[in-house]
Order: sequence, then structure tokens, then C-alpha cells
Amino acid sequence: MTLQHTRTHEPFIVDTTSSKLASLRPLHLRQVRLQDAFWEPRRQVNREITLPSQYQQCVTTGRLDNFKRAAGQIQGPFQGMFYNDSDVYKWVEAVAWTLAAEKDERLEAEVDEVIGLIAAAQGEDGYLNTYFTFENADQRWSNLRDMHELYCAGHLFQAAVAHHRATGKTTLLDVATRFADYIDSVFGTGERAGTCGHPEIEMALVELSRETGEERYLALAQRFIDNRGLEPPVVGGSTYHQDHAPFRQQNEVVGHAVRALYLYSGATDAYTQTGEQALLDAVNSLWSDLQEHKVYITGGVGSRYEGEAFGEPYELPNDRAYTETCASIAHIMWAWRLLLLTGESTYADALELALYNGMLSGISQDGESYFYQNPLADRGKHRRQPWFGTACCPPNIARLLASLPGYLYTTSENTLWAHLYASSEANVHLPQGGALTVRQSSNYPWDGKIEFSIEPETGQTTFELNLRIPAWAEGATVNVNGEALTAPVRPGSYYHIERDWRAGDRVELVLPLAMRAVTSHPHVSNNNGRVALLRGPLLYCVEQADHQADVWDITLPRQFEWSEHFDANLLGGVVTAQTQALAHTDQGWQGQLYRPYGQEQPTYTPTQLTAIPYYAWANREPGPMQVWLPIKPE
Amino acid sequence: MTLQHTRTHEPFIVDTTSSKLASLRPLHLRQVRLQDAFWEPRRQVNREITLPSQYQQCVTTGRLDNFKRAAGQIQGPFQGMFYNDSDVYKWVEAVAWTLAAEKDERLEAEVDEVIGLIAAAQGEDGYLNTYFTFENADQRWSNLRDMHELYCAGHLFQAAVAHHRATGKTTLLDVATRFADYIDSVFGTGERAGTCGHPEIEMALVELSRETGEERYLALAQRFIDNRGLEPPVVGGSTYHQDHAPFRQQNEVVGHAVRALYLYSGATDAYTQTGEQALLDAVNSLWSDLQEHKVYITGGVGSRYEGEAFGEPYELPNDRAYTETCASIAHIMWAWRLLLLTGESTYADALELALYNGMLSGISQDGESYFYQNPLADRGKHRRQPWFGTACCPPNIARLLASLPGYLYTTSENTLWAHLYASSEANVHLPQGGALTVRQSSNYPWDGKIEFSIEPETGQTTFELNLRIPAWAEGATVNVNGEALTAPVRPGSYYHIERDWRAGDRVELVLPLAMRAVTSHPHVSNNNGRVALLRGPLLYCVEQADHQADVWDITLPRQFEWSEHFDANLLGGVVTAQTQALAHTDQGWQGQLYRPYGQEQPTYTPTQLTAIPYYAWANREPGPMQVWLPIKPE
Repeated sequence: MTLQHTRTHEPFIVDTTSSKLASLRPLHLRQVRLQDAFWEPRRQVNREITLPSQYQQCVTTGRLDNFKRAAGQIQGPFQGMFYNDSDVYKWVEAVAWTLAAEKDERLEAEVDEVIGLIAAAQGEDGYLNTYFTFENADQRWSNLRDMHELYCAGHLFQAAVAHHRATGKTTLLDVATRFADYIDSVFGTGERAGTCGHPEIEMALVELSRETGEERYLALAQRFIDNRGLEPPVVGGSTYHQDHAPFRQQNEVVGHAVRALYLYSGATDAYTQTGEQALLDAVNSLWSDLQEHKVYITGGVGSRYEGEAFGEPYELPNDRAYTETCASIAHIMWAWRLLLLTGESTYADALELALYNGMLSGISQDGESYFYQNPLADRGKHRRQPWFGTACCPPNIARLLASLPGYLYTTSENTLWAHLYASSEANVHLPQGGALTVRQSSNYPWDGKIEFSIEPETGQTTFELNLRIPAWAEGATVNVNGEALTAPVRPGSYYHIERDWRAGDRVELVLPLAMRAVTSHPHVSNNNGRVALLRGPLLYCVEQADHQADVWDITLPRQFEWSEHFDANLLGGVVTAQTQALAHTDQGWQGQLYRPYGQEQPTYTPTQLTAIPYYAWANREPGPMQVWLPIKPE
Repeated sequence: MTLQHTRTHEPFIVDTTSSKLASLRPLHLRQVRLQDAFWEPRRQVNREITLPSQYQQCVTTGRLDNFKRAAGQIQGPFQGMFYNDSDVYKWVEAVAWTLAAEKDERLEAEVDEVIGLIAAAQGEDGYLNTYFTFENADQRWSNLRDMHELYCAGHLFQAAVAHHRATGKTTLLDVATRFADYIDSVFGTGERAGTCGHPEIEMALVELSRETGEERYLALAQRFIDNRGLEPPVVGGSTYHQDHAPFRQQNEVVGHAVRALYLYSGATDAYTQTGEQALLDAVNSLWSDLQEHKVYITGGVGSRYEGEAFGEPYELPNDRAYTETCASIAHIMWAWRLLLLTGESTYADALELALYNGMLSGISQDGESYFYQNPLADRGKHRRQPWFGTACCPPNIARLLASLPGYLYTTSENTLWAHLYASSEANVHLPQGGALTVRQSSNYPWDGKIEFSIEPETGQTTFELNLRIPAWAEGATVNVNGEALTAPVRPGSYYHIERDWRAGDRVELVLPLAMRAVTSHPHVSNNNGRVALLRGPLLYCVEQADHQADVWDITLPRQFEWSEHFDANLLGGVVTAQTQALAHTDQGWQGQLYRPYGQEQPTYTPTQLTAIPYYAWANREPGPMQVWLPIKPE
């Protein structure tokens, strides 16, 4: 049985073209070419440094050998963690998105080689997991709670869908569908209630269904969602494994953050295909809980080292923030799906925040080392690492950067939506508007002026252009061909421009990027009396390398003014912000942890404060860093 | 070879009588009878409720069956955790201290029965651990890092020493020495470098040496200290196992808090016997680091759930404070040893703080349920439990309460030192002062007036009375027979009164107990702009049961005055403190986690604040609790 809708093999990041419920349809990777000075150089590093070095890591850590071994090509023991196949799949996905619009013979050869190994490692029956071969083969599906078999399968499916969409080749897609059919024969028939202790396969199956037209995969995704929170539990019943409650009854984000957000993403995908209201109600409740109680100002989520879990509401410690890079990425994935579903700008705002901050801090400027945890305060001990025993984050960053052009625009009916801002060229086809080219020219995120030029293929056409006005962009302005538009520009919405467009029409959007300070809910005790600094989508921090005084002692006066300038030679080119601040120098605290109230006689010395983008910290010499800065008490 | 000193079988909690280095010699449990309204009723609950219920827990959880099984008396599998023997030993120790000065036929029969089981479970060779019997016997000493064999042995030795000192019986001491001799034959000879992943045996061996006069046990304790931080490491090399560095090179408290503090206590004991300066230097450095950077205002320590570890300096979260009850007890044990060594009041202050707060919060008012973690803020989810799979805390509380009278007084030369204040009667013998009876009469900690009456056996004698003036006791006064003394009373020291005492002489010490507020170091970000409230040795908190407004919204004005009164019917009788405070009611935070700085328009409504002692929280209906209260910003 196949889906009713036209199947596509274009490199959409999430393909909502077959869903009547999705408000938006994305542009795919061959439609959008980034040309900006912020993301495109990072994507180049991703392609030239990160992906080759991750390939080498997969070689030296035995991740590829595990496939060779499973294929019978080499002898020896299984190497590393039992879920290591998933890192290879994520690397394949990242390469696939990279190859969608760019030639890279080395990567192409490597990915074909790796796909060959993957295919060779697949069993006669379709089963594929290099850990569960030979001596462990009899343990297949015996511990769904802990052993990540379906999780690894999910990453395989995502890689296969990406590879097919990007290259048109079916080499990996055939492997994926064979395995998916086998999984469906085990878990899809009603005889065995299964689900995975680590959600991931749900969204992968929805996309596999979209790519192949096979509705059984969608049904299987649904079934894996439905099998959570049963009595007796299928995978242990804990929040850690997202098995504590039936999904449709959930309204509180709990448990392991990455597992939770992957599940929420999969449930959103499933709703987008099925329209089941109970799924949407749960998704909406969970999103609200996350945004109102449990998200960091970085867009990062997951407060606790213990269980890599969300904490209680307002439990957002800065120095011990866990905020796994993968959780920021999962947050982006979920936000993207909700944006496609609804067309509401709040999701794009959340996506942009997590993208520029919580995700981007996860990789070094040189593209070769990574944060697993992304704290918001540190004493200089926390440094990026070249790899991890559990290496989920590095290839997760790589696949996101590779796929980034796919997040800029969407269309709906006769409307073109611009979500992210970066110099770029996009080829769009609108049902009535026809083909057109849209060029963005900006120095975002350093400068808030973004120019669009519209080139209809026929020289003239009618459509609506929707520009995202971020919630922080108070005072944003829009003009067309130099004339200001009369409709008010409201932050936290899309600005609609419907007109007859002619070749050469220019739209100028100006998003005010002045430094701004935010406070957090009083119950976030570690932020009481403190502010975080942002400029446009970027969170700022203070790092020791720019200061004499301990940055943990730096205090802002109650009023402050910023001097901002772009420093091309600093941290790959960043806007820094300076202000006159104070360094707390109360010697009475020497050797004291507690003192009688009222005995403090805080003394301060003036000091220059230099704030840098949070994502760029820990690329210089180690030292303290802080995001939330105290305001001097009166 | 035996020690030079007179051996004693009196129930000293830590017997420093054989150490020339110890400044102080404690009174033992038969010398001091508590008669107060605070501790003695708790000790009665301990004897009548807690210890019998813990015995039942040891029965129903198979802890006693494990001994029967090892003795060949019953069949079946080993039950529970491999370290469960230690809970039985701690219960035996608690009963022993209880029986030292009191008759309790039921407890006496139970403890004799349990000791019989322990003895019967001992191997021919002296080995004793019920997990490592039968099917696991061949794994003895094969995993010193994880399997707690020496830890369990340490608890056995402490129980045996207590039992011998309390009852004069050698039934358990003989078991202990046989096992200690066996351990010495394995690890004491130089052939095998061993130590335990969970320190504990070190202090036990020093006391066993003191009790038996056997110097080999002291040497073995030293050896277990010396074998930490070797290259290659003996027990894995981690901070968690206190194997990260040679002890004498340590100056930072790191790793698992209970393991660390047990080790520091053992090293302090060892120094007290040997006088090795390098040990003392490390001990002093570690104490300073703990007090200056890593101790909660409760006296609790160990900030992190992850690894039950100390955090970084100033990492003292309130809601996620781990602060295991055992860590507070270990803090008390270490402070007591340093007090005996030095006679410095700072150690007694630390001991008292941890005793009244961090330890005492660990047990419910009814004596039948326990906290493992003791947070300083909560939303109402954290409740005491009747028992735990890992049940170290409950019998640890029981043995401390049972031994409490032993902490009140010490002597040195011709001086009597009073460390803790509670109505009591003590029989003292001073080298030159001879025998005398000292009676304390007070309603401490509710009232700060403490009266001492001195009754020399001969009607008249000369000695010095040293009264601890806690560091918080600004304005304390002392008079003798109604006449104020001229020497200034300095908080944070002992006040010396040397005179010819006559029968009926009365000393009146007044410690001002007004509510006081303290602040914490600015780097403890979660306490910025907040105060903690104390009254005498007691930390106070606000609990939801006394308030309409959410106690997390309660804010203190910058100036506040207290109305304090004793409520006999509340929580077993407590002084509560009331003040006019404010409830934060800024509706702008509804559904918001972050807001622009300057947009807050904090609104407050007056509210009555009622503070209760921290130790008493969570004995009523569940609800939020908070220790560190915000001060209203100007």
C-alpha cells in the first residue's frame, strides 16, 4: 500500500509534502545556496575538516571495523559501545546532506565505501546491528530497554532517507527498507509489544514512510509511540526510557532530555501524517512546559548530569548545566517540525536560539573538537574534546550543519516564508507565483539589515512574502524598494508582504541588534539579581581571556551602555560588546563562605567588560566564563 | 606487641586516652546522663522505636538471614546488596552505645542473638562477609575497589569496640580481632598493596588498636591510608574511591563525600596516635577547603547527586543538594576527632551545626523514616522513607543518637571542657581536681541560658572549667554565683574559669539566641541576594504548611524583626519565629521564563512569615520548603 501523495526524492530535511496537515513545505537543499560569512564558512569547515576527521575517528575507534567484522571481512572482537553503529549512520547522513548540492569526490567515495560495508553487514533476514552478530546474535531484541537496537535502526533509516534524497541512489535505502520490513515483521504485527528505551526510530520511520510511500512504516512508528507507558511496561516504566506514562497523557517534560525530544519530534511527525488530536494535545502541552519551565537561555535543555535529565521546573543551574549538544539539536528538530506544522514564529525563534547558541557551542572554531555538555558558567576546567566513547554529539552537529540551508525558507500555497537570515540564493516555485529566485544579502547575525531581491522567472508575479520578525526584534522595520510599509511590524510574528513582484524588487528588513539584557523567573534562584546579555539571536558571555578581574566577580551597574564592534581577527570574526562595569573586591570574603547579613561592605573597582558570543567560548586559553552577570545591588 | 598506655573498657566514643597528642580526653557514656527535653526524648525514640524497627528491617530485608545462611543455618540465596552486613554492624554499634548506660532487655537479647549470628558466620580463617560465602567465596579480595569488603570489616570493628566498651563482653571483639588478624595477614605484610574503595576501616582499626592494645592494627590502618594514590593505583585511581592522589599530597576535598570524610577521620585518628606531621598537614588543608568552599549552612556536605560527590568550590545548589545524612554524620565524626586533638572551638561549632541540622533532618519526628538526601529547597516531592535498598543512613543516625552523651564534655589535665549544651548530669574525675558532679540545666537550643552546678566530691576543689562560646554567640555572658566575670567573653573560643570550686557553685552562661541572618559568598550564585536564618545552633526554614503564599515567593524586607515563641504542640515542641514579610506576586511572570531586564514590575503583598527549624521540615503535609530567602531588592 502506498501513500496517496506524490513521492519526492528531493533533499528536504523533513518532507511534509505528503501531509495535508502541515502548514509549510520546506525548500530542499538544492534550492538554497548559503553565501554568508557566518554559516557557510562553518559548513565549509564541516565538509573539509569535521566530516573527514569524523571518518578517521570512525576508523580508529573500530566503528567501521565493526561493520567489516559483521560482514565477515575481518576477525576480532566487537569494538566500543554497543550503540556505535549509530555514529556511523549519522556521519553518513551528514555526508549525504553535504553531497546534496555540492561535489566532494573524497566524501562521495568514503560514503559509498561505508554504505557498502553497511550493506555487507546486513543479515539475510534484513537484521542489521553489528553488536548483535556472532556471539551476541541470540540476544537480539532481548533487551529493548537498554541496548539501543531500534535507536540504531532509526539512525540508519534517517541516513538512508537523506542519502536517497540527496543522491537518488537506493543503495542505502534498500538496506533500510529491508531492515524496516524485518522490524515490522517482529513488532508491527500485534504479536509483540515493543518499543525502544531510546526513542529515535519514531521520526525515522515517518520519514522512511514519506520517502518510500510505505504506510506500514508510519503505522510502526505509531505503534512504537503507543507502546510507551503500558502496564506492565514494555521498557521498564521509567522516565529515563520515556516509558513512565502513555504519550497522550503526558504534559510534563521529564526524563532523559534527548530521548524525550526525539520522541516528541516523532510524535509531531506522526500527527502531521495522521491528524490524531490526542497526539497534538500532548505535543502542545509538552512544548509549553519546556518553554515555560525548563529551557536555558541558550536554547539548551536537560539540566541534570544525573540521568541526562530535565530537572524540576526552574531547575536551571549554570555551572552544572548538562545541556547536551544533542539535546539542543533535538530541540531544533522538534521546533522545525512544529514550525512546518503550524507556521508560527515562536517555533522558528526557539529554533534560531538553540541553533546559534546551544548547538553551536558544541563545536570548536577549528571544527575538530566538541562539547558534550554546554554549561553557562565555568571555572576553566570544561574544554571541548576531539571525540567521546559515546560520540553521539559530533556527528549530530555535522548533520545539522550539513543540512542548514534547508531551514531557511518554506512555502505554503502562494506564500514564501523566510525563517532564518543569511546571505543566500534560493530558487523557489510557487503554485501561482511560478518560479523565482530570491537573494538574501546581509551580515546577519552581526548586522540586522537584511536585503532581499526578488527575480521572478517571468519578470513579474504575485505572491506573499512572509518575513519572520523575531520576538526580540522590537523596532524592526521593513521597506520595499526604499518605501516603508504601513502595516505595523510586530515582533513575534511573520510580516506579510503580498504584492505584484517585479524583477529587481528589493525588500529591506532591519532587525535592531542592540545588546539587550534579560532576567529569569524568580524561582531560578541561581539567576536572581542577574541578567543575561543577548544581541539578536546570539547569547553573550564574559570569558576570562578578555579580562583582568575574575569574570565571576564582574558586576554590572544598574544602567549600562554598550560599545559594539566587529573584530574580524577574534574568534573567527565576532561582534564584541564593551561596557564600563565593576569588579567585586570585597576582601571580607577571604576564606569565608558565610557571613552575618549586613556585615558585607561590598567594594567595587571599575573594570571594562567585554562580552563575546557564548558559542565562541573555550576557543582560547582556559579560564572562567559566565553568562548570567550580577547587577550591582543598590 | 601492646601499646604503652593503660587500656580501658569504658564506653568512650573515640578513645584518645592512649594518645599523647590528643589535647582532650572525652567523658564516656556512663559518666554523662542526658536529662534534657531536646535530645533525651529523641534518644528514647531511638531506643524504643528506631532501633527495634531497624532490627525488623534487618529481618525482613534478609540482612540477618544472610548471616544465618553464611553460618549454614538456612538455605537460599544471598539477599540484597553485597554491603548489607555493614547495616547490621551499625545497628549493633547503636545498640551497644545504648546499652552502655541503660538497661533494655529486649535490645540486649536481640543484640546477643545478632552477635551470635555474626560469630557463627565467621570462617575458620577469620574471614567474615556474608556475601563472599559459598558461590562467591572464590572472589574474596578480588575487587577491593567496588565490593566493600574492608568497609564492612571496618563497621564490624567499630561495632565490636563499642560492644566491648559498653558491655565488657568480648563476644564480638573476639570475632573482630580474629578477622583483623586475618586481614593483617593478607594486607599487612607488605606482600599485597590493598586498600578499600570505600574508606571506613582506617578509623575502625585505630580504635580497635586502642581497645586491644594491638599496634599491628594501627599499622594496618596506616598502610591502608598509605596505599591510596599509588602508581599504578590500587583501587582504580579515581576521586570517587579516594585513590586519586597520595593522602599526604591532598589539599582539596573531592570525590564521594562520605568516603572522603571517613578517610579524613581515619587519617586524623592515625595522626593522633603517630604524630606524623605530613598527615596532619593534609588533614588541616582538607578541613580548611571544606569549611571555606564546600559546606552547606546545614553542616551538610556533598553537593552532587552524581557520584555523591563534593562539587567545585561554591557549588552548593539548594534544591539539588545531595548532602547525604551519612556525610553530615561523617562531618561530625571528623570534627569530633579534630576537637579531641586540638581543643579548638571551631571544630565543636562545626560539629554542633551538623548535629542539629544536617544530621537531624535525616530522621522523622516519629523515628521511623529517613532522608538519604537533605536538600535546602524543595517543591514538596522529597519525603523521608522507612528504609532504603542501600540503608547506610538509618543505622548511622541511630548510632550517633545513641552515643550523643559522649560528645558533651572532655577533660584535659585539670580542666573540664563543656562542648555541647543540654540538661544533664556528669561525673568527672580530674587528676588534681578529683571527683565531681557537674549538672547542666537549660532549655537549649530553645533558650540560651545554661546553668552549671558544681559538686566536688570532697566539697571543694580547684580546676578550670572551659565553656564553649560558639562563634555566633555575640554578646554571650558568664557569671559565677550571680557575679559577672571580668574576662571578656569571646565568641569562637572557650571561656576559661579557673577557681576553687565549692559545692553548690553555680555558673550561668547566657548565649544570645536571637534570630540572625547570614549571607553566602557571592560565587554561590543560587544564594545571591538571599539570607539564611539561624537561631543559636539551629538553621531555620519556611515550610508551606505554615503559609498561604508559595514559600518560594516569600521575600524578606531589607529590615526585619522577629517575634519568637515556643510552641509545645508543634513538631514535638519548637521555637518558631514570625516576621512581616512579602509575597512576590508579579503576574508578568505567568507562563514566562525570561523577560527583558527592566520590564519586571515586582509587586508584593504583605504576608506573615513563620520560620521553623530546618531539621523539623517534612513532618507535616508535603509542600514547598526553602532555606535561603530572597531579600527584596531596593
